[in-house]
Amino acid sequence: MRIVDLIEKKKQGQVLSKEEINFLINSLMDETAPDYQIAAWLMAVYFKGLTEDETAYLTEAMINSGEVIDFGDLTDSIVDKHSTGGVGDKVTITLIPLLAAAGIPVAKLSGKGLGHTGGTIDKLESIPGFNTKLTIQELIAQVKKINVAIASQTQNLTPADGKLYALRDVTATVDSMPLIASSVVSKKIASGAKNIILDVKYGSGAFMKTPEEAVQLSKLMVNIGKILNKSITAVITSMEEPLGRAVGNSLEIIESIEFLKGNIKEGDVAELTYSFASIALVQLGMYHDKSAAKAYLKELVHSGKALEKLKELIAAQGGNLEIVNNYDLFDLPAYKVECEAKKSGYVHNIDAYKIAYACKILGAGRDRKTDPIDYSVGVYLNKKSGQGVNEGDVLYTIYSNDPEKTKIAQRYCDEAFDIAKDKPVQQNMIYKIIRAEEN
Amino acid sequence: MRIVDLIEKKKQGQVLSKEEINFLINSLMDETAPDYQIAAWLMAVYFKGLTEDETAYLTEAMINSGEVIDFGDLTDSIVDKHSTGGVGDKVTITLIPLLAAAGIPVAKLSGKGLGHTGGTIDKLESIPGFNTKLTIQELIAQVKKINVAIASQTQNLTPADGKLYALRDVTATVDSMPLIASSVVSKKIASGAKNIILDVKYGSGAFMKTPEEAVQLSKLMVNIGKILNKSITAVITSMEEPLGRAVGNSLEIIESIEFLKGNIKEGDVAELTYSFASIALVQLGMYHDKSAAKAYLKELVHSGKALEKLKELIAAQGGNLEIVNNYDLFDLPAYKVECEAKKSGYVHNIDAYKIAYACKILGAGRDRKTDPIDYSVGVYLNKKSGQGVNEGDVLYTIYSNDPEKTKIAQRYCDEAFDIAKDKPVQQNMIYKIIRAEEN
Repeated sequence: MRIVDLIEKKKQGQVLSKEEINFLINSLMDETAPDYQIAAWLMAVYFKGLTEDETAYLTEAMINSGEVIDFGDLTDSIVDKHSTGGVGDKVTITLIPLLAAAGIPVAKLSGKGLGHTGGTIDKLESIPGFNTKLTIQELIAQVKKINVAIASQTQNLTPADGKLYALRDVTATVDSMPLIASSVVSKKIASGAKNIILDVKYGSGAFMKTPEEAVQLSKLMVNIGKILNKSITAVITSMEEPLGRAVGNSLEIIESIEFLKGNIKEGDVAELTYSFASIALVQLGMYHDKSAAKAYLKELVHSGKALEKLKELIAAQGGNLEIVNNYDLFDLPAYKVECEAKKSGYVHNIDAYKIAYACKILGAGRDRKTDPIDYSVGVYLNKKSGQGVNEGDVLYTIYSNDPEKTKIAQRYCDEAFDIAKDKPVQQNMIYKIIRAEEN
Repeated sequence: MRIVDLIEKKKQGQVLSKEEINFLINSLMDETAPDYQIAAWLMAVYFKGLTEDETAYLTEAMINSGEVIDFGDLTDSIVDKHSTGGVGDKVTITLIPLLAAAGIPVAKLSGKGLGHTGGTIDKLESIPGFNTKLTIQELIAQVKKINVAIASQTQNLTPADGKLYALRDVTATVDSMPLIASSVVSKKIASGAKNIILDVKYGSGAFMKTPEEAVQLSKLMVNIGKILNKSITAVITSMEEPLGRAVGNSLEIIESIEFLKGNIKEGDVAELTYSFASIALVQLGMYHDKSAAKAYLKELVHSGKALEKLKELIAAQGGNLEIVNNYDLFDLPAYKVECEAKKSGYVHNIDAYKIAYACKILGAGRDRKTDPIDYSVGVYLNKKSGQGVNEGDVLYTIYSNDPEKTKIAQRYCDEAFDIAKDKPVQQNMIYKIIRAEEN
């Protein structure tokens, strides 16, 4: 078997066998296939796609390239959640203490964020002392003890995916549906959970621009799960504007704590957190009815049990518990600038990409894994879509450490807001839920 | 400027600017762009193509990546010929002494053959002592002295093309029209000729499978020549079956000598040699009429002047002149096997690819530039298309050094011959001639 023939085959739109895909991934891992051949193959895949079977073979080959976490007795009840990534997305941070408080074991491995704003791990690392570098043994032990743990992805899981992703990132082959699907699903399966909830975003701030694309990706991931004997539910959600009001690492942790304190009862963060959690409760057979599950979950927040679980999580991973009561214990930005609306009307949309770009300029994100991140900076949206605004009202607040960067960020934020006269029609956050049975 | 953005742009089917293409080629040359990014870009080009302007920019950037030969006063009259490659193609070897005998300076640089049979340089190196490793200074001096020189391509000409080609070869991106066009034309222009004749093959034994594809490639190359101020004529010729009767390095030299001795008056080799030569004579204004030019050229062969020029060429480059009179001075194969027709009828076709593959098995070609070549082996076609054959007639002859390889080669050769009852309609060798004016 020669790699160049497999490139040619895919270039011609032919289907590769399981053996051929294994050969490709093994050759990538033992470095008998040079990166330039893999890169050419990836570009051919971008143009010609992979079938569902090919995608499952690729997923399996990537899982087999490294370690697979084994939670033993817990395997069948454990839940993992993944989001395809959105601006201001802190729902993992709100969701996992809530699920754990409901008695569901949650183990979450997460990569460091590359891009305009930090990833979940970066956000948590903004909590002074919080350690995400758990070994697999520590992760398993902590889940068994307090039902919840979160760790940065170790290099031993799906190393083939890590190599492929690094190559896709620099060869403009990230946005390929089967490559995205196999990357996401392989990491989740190697993380050891049987039950996986995927938040698949669509919209201007997401990889998938249309709900139709998100449905396609979701069906593909759910079906790969089925082939590989895992229970995957994909929730397709809108990412037209940032999720919640805070964008930026410590700002998003603060918003998450506010939710768990019961201070955020409505809006997108609350809606998604309760929806994902209730799906998990129903999927595990704890409730037959989602609205009953939601009532129970709300009570867990109201009673302070969910916040208590977050504190347990922070304590278990070495973080400073006091930040829950005193937000000044976070790294603080040099100053904040409240920016006013230049006209009156209703907010119709807030361009997620532009807000993210502003945060990137402020220093909230990174281009390389080794780049430092400024946890303290970001943008807080004082107004969200559907809200009325008068000229002069505070529209958003910039948290910054640099006056020059503030100016540029402000320009992007101003452009992000679409304010018009009429009250807009509110869109549903959740477009569709896809389960294996329904396919 | 970032390479990943240029990959993305091409992936989206957008047009790159001259600056962007220069940046790509410069980054390839100074190794700031890793091969995997170039490979991904090449695959995107395969799928999305390049415009004529982009192809000209690429051609120019590759020319500028290395040395350009300067023939001084000779530049305007010098002729170069290139073939896109065909099985048994020895027309360069027949053509250049003929043109030189007609008083036209010919400088030919040629690459080593990769593939099933050797390239022109390999064929010439089958002449004992023949040295193709001329410096550029030696090449120029020899052309000025005896009107003709042929050398293996030095690494200083179009090194960017060399790098790109090496990458295309292992990433299944060879068969892209703009990449083929820019590769061919850049090498020819850097070789210093103003007048370039391109033999563009189509058919089962060629890169271009249909005449339509060959026309498209030809127009592209002629137009790039126009943009870059060179006079290019493309002759589109059929490569359904091997050219001439001999396939294999020394066998092809012998057939070329036979032509120059006047012993081969008809058939594809004679037709193409006289056609290309007469096009050159007309292009340079020596004749207005191709048939008059042809009569003059035939006289050059008949009088022995063309053969004399070949002997001058061999002598100038250190080869053993005596081979012209004594073919036993070539490396000889251990034995030859005459293979008989298994049925009677007419030869309708001889699959060029299968004959080439048989030669490859016998050892006439190579996979890597450093692999040795067996000059003595090959296949001689005793019958060609259109000829009648009786069961038991010698159909072809295998020249070999290994009985096992002979058996396998014989199987491919038998499969290559298509023999049927009715006399076939003979096809024209030349499908179309494309000049800049006619476009």
